This record gives sequence, C-alpha cells and structure tokens, in this order.
Amino acid sequence: MIITIGREFGSGGRELGKRLAEALGIAYFDKEIVAEVAKNTSLAFDYVQNIIEQRPIVYYPISIGHSFEDYNNYVAREYYSVHSEQDKVIKEIASKSDCVIVGRCADYILRDLHPYKIFVYSSMEAKIKRCKEKGEVDTSLTDKKIIKSIKQIDRQRGEYYEFYTGMRWGDKENYDLMINTSNASIKEIALGLAEVIRQATNNK
Amino acid sequence: MIITIGREFGSGGRELGKRLAEALGIAYFDKEIVAEVAKNTSLAFDYVQNIIEQRPIVYYPISIGHSFEDYNNYVAREYYSVHSEQDKVIKEIASKSDCVIVGRCADYILRDLHPYKIFVYSSMEAKIKRCKEKGEVDTSLTDKKIIKSIKQIDRQRGEYYEFYTGMRWGDKENYDLMINTSNASIKEIALGLAEVIRQATNNK
Repeated sequence: MIITIGREFGSGGRELGKRLAEALGIAYFDKEIVAEVAKNTSLAFDYVQNIIEQRPIVYYPISIGHSFEDYNNYVAREYYSVHSEQDKVIKEIASKSDCVIVGRCADYILRDLHPYKIFVYSSMEAKIKRCKEKGEVDTSLTDKKIIKSIKQIDRQRGEYYEFYTGMRWGDKENYDLMINTSNASIKEIALGLAEVIRQATNNK
Repeated sequence: MIITIGREFGSGGRELGKRLAEALGIAYFDKEIVAEVAKNTSLAFDYVQNIIEQRPIVYYPISIGHSFEDYNNYVAREYYSVHSEQDKVIKEIASKSDCVIVGRCADYILRDLHPYKIFVYSSMEAKIKRCKEKGEVDTSLTDKKIIKSIKQIDRQRGEYYEFYTGMRWGDKENYDLMINTSNASIKEIALGLAEVIRQATNNK
C-alpha cells in the first residue's frame, strides 16, 4: 500500500499524511527523503531541499550548447544528481514497505506501483488560518502578504510538478481522491479516509 | 446532514449516492424530484426531465424584447416554472429530512444549508465499462459512439451547472470531496466515505 499526497501550502497535507500513516499502521516520509538524498550526495540538507523544491529554469540542461558557462554546467549536473538521487531514494523507500509519501512528485515517480493518489486543498481563508495556527508564517505579516507568499509557494509547487511530470498539478484526473480541508477537522476525517484507502487499494 | 452529489455520466454517482444514504440511514433523492415537479406543474415526467437537464439557450428570456414570438415566451415561462418548482421541491425535501440529492445543482440551490458537496468522476475507459455493465448505453454501439455520447451528456451537465450557478462544474473549489471511481469498487469505499462525511458534517 503506497499513498502519495499532493497538497496546497497550508491545506494540512502533511498532517493528513501523518494521520493516515498512523491509522493504517504504515510508514510516513517527508523530510526524511531530503535527509537521505543529502547524505547520499554529500550535500547540505537545506541546499538539497532548495534544489528539490524549485523548478530549475536557467540551469536545466534541456539543450546544453557550447555557449553555456562552466558554472551553469556544474549547477545543472548538481540538479541532475540531486533529482536522480531523490528518485532512487523514493523508489527504494516504496519497495521496502507500505508508506505515505508527501509531495516530491512521488505519484509520478512511483506510477508503476499504482499508488493511491490524494490531493489536499482548501480555501485561501482556511489556509491563512492554518498557517497562522501552525506557525508556518510570520504572524506579524499582513494577510495580504501571507496570501502572496502562499500563492507563490503553490505556484512553485505547480510549476515543479508540471515540469517533472508533464501533468497539471491539482487536476482531478491525476488523483484518486481530492479532499477539501476548509471546513473539516483533519484529525476527525482521517479515520474514514484511511478506510476508503484500505478498501480502494484492496480492490486494485 | 445534507449531501449533494455532482457526477460525470457513467462514473457511478447515483450508486454512490444510494450507498451513502443507506450507510448513513438518510433519504436518497434523484428522479423522485422530477416526479414531484411533474406533479406540481401538471406536466409530463419526461417533459419535465428534459427541461431540467437541458440548458435553455434560445428560449431563456434573459432579455425578452418585443421581437420574441409568443411561442418562445410560452416556452420560456414553462422553463421558468419548472425550474422554480424544482428549486422549491429541493428546498422542501432538504428542510424536512437529512438526505442525499444527486445532480440538479442541489449544491447551489441548498448553499445556505451548507451541504457536504461531493463530485464523482472517472476515466473515460472506466465510464465506458460501467455504462455497458449497467446497461446505460446501447451495447451494440461502437466505443467511439459511446464516448461521443458520454462526452455530450457531460458537456450538457457542465453547461447546465455553469448557466444556473455561475460556477464551473467539477472544479475542486466547489466541492468538499472529489472521488475518482476508475479503480474503486463503489460498494467497498462507500462505508469509509460515509464515515468521512459523518465526521466532516459533525464538525461544521
């Protein structure tokens, strides 16, 4: 049983992932993946995290010509090695045990294993509220600035997903279940969702 | 507890609606609404059904001018009376008891009651299979013709929804939960979904 979770920033995707893993008695992976990639590539955690979360535009060697600088080639190689290492780590994790993996295009990377694919989203109002409660944004910021920051992160996630998978992030066709957490207590709906997943993955 | 279900043709929305109603011990409404509207307007069931499911384009009196024919005025009035009767019937049903209502823009009509809004969808391949199994299409038709017919019905449902609500049909923002039935047995996932709904509506 492999469950992948795509999620809008502030929608509670990580919380849902953890609760589902707990309810189903399976492993949960998120930042552990970054740590493993960092270890395997001998790069710093934050640096790897940064590479993984950003869609490389200038650096990515789609069509490297002679005009590229050595520096760009170097950065491009590093992007490549981090991403291929991440692919390897995610595939290894999924081959070893049932698990929930949050983000990282895991739905696409693990497509041959037919994971159960969830997308978590919510209204902007609910996202602001959740970010403030969870301390994920500087609460001294105005709502306008928080909205700008949420939108920017989601745009980045969408671009990253589309760049690596060729599919649209958050399009219902790419997921088995999409859950709106605007009015829901994640703690309370997790048990029912775990049951849905249990039945749906039995059936596959 | 009011649950509304929007659904793509052939995705099993009606089956899910019935099973949820059963699991939650609440009423289920679908064609009963048409029957009630027909009774109240003294029009034939099929005629009412037809009016309800089609978005009126020519007939709808957005801006009736003197150039309109009497016939069009007559048809427009009938559209109006059927739709306002349907609104009344749906609101009456929902005010009387907890229920599941399939289609009919019930999510919009009942928005003040904050229903739990579900959208059911699936891949074209799964829809063809389901339609054939359920005898909802002429099985002597080629797959190409079945696809054309499914697409046409869904386009009609989308246009109808957008015309009456001003929102986009099947857009995740308009729903609490979206479920892809391509690989799922509806019978098996219904119990878990009922639990999700029970928790989510408790929380509202």
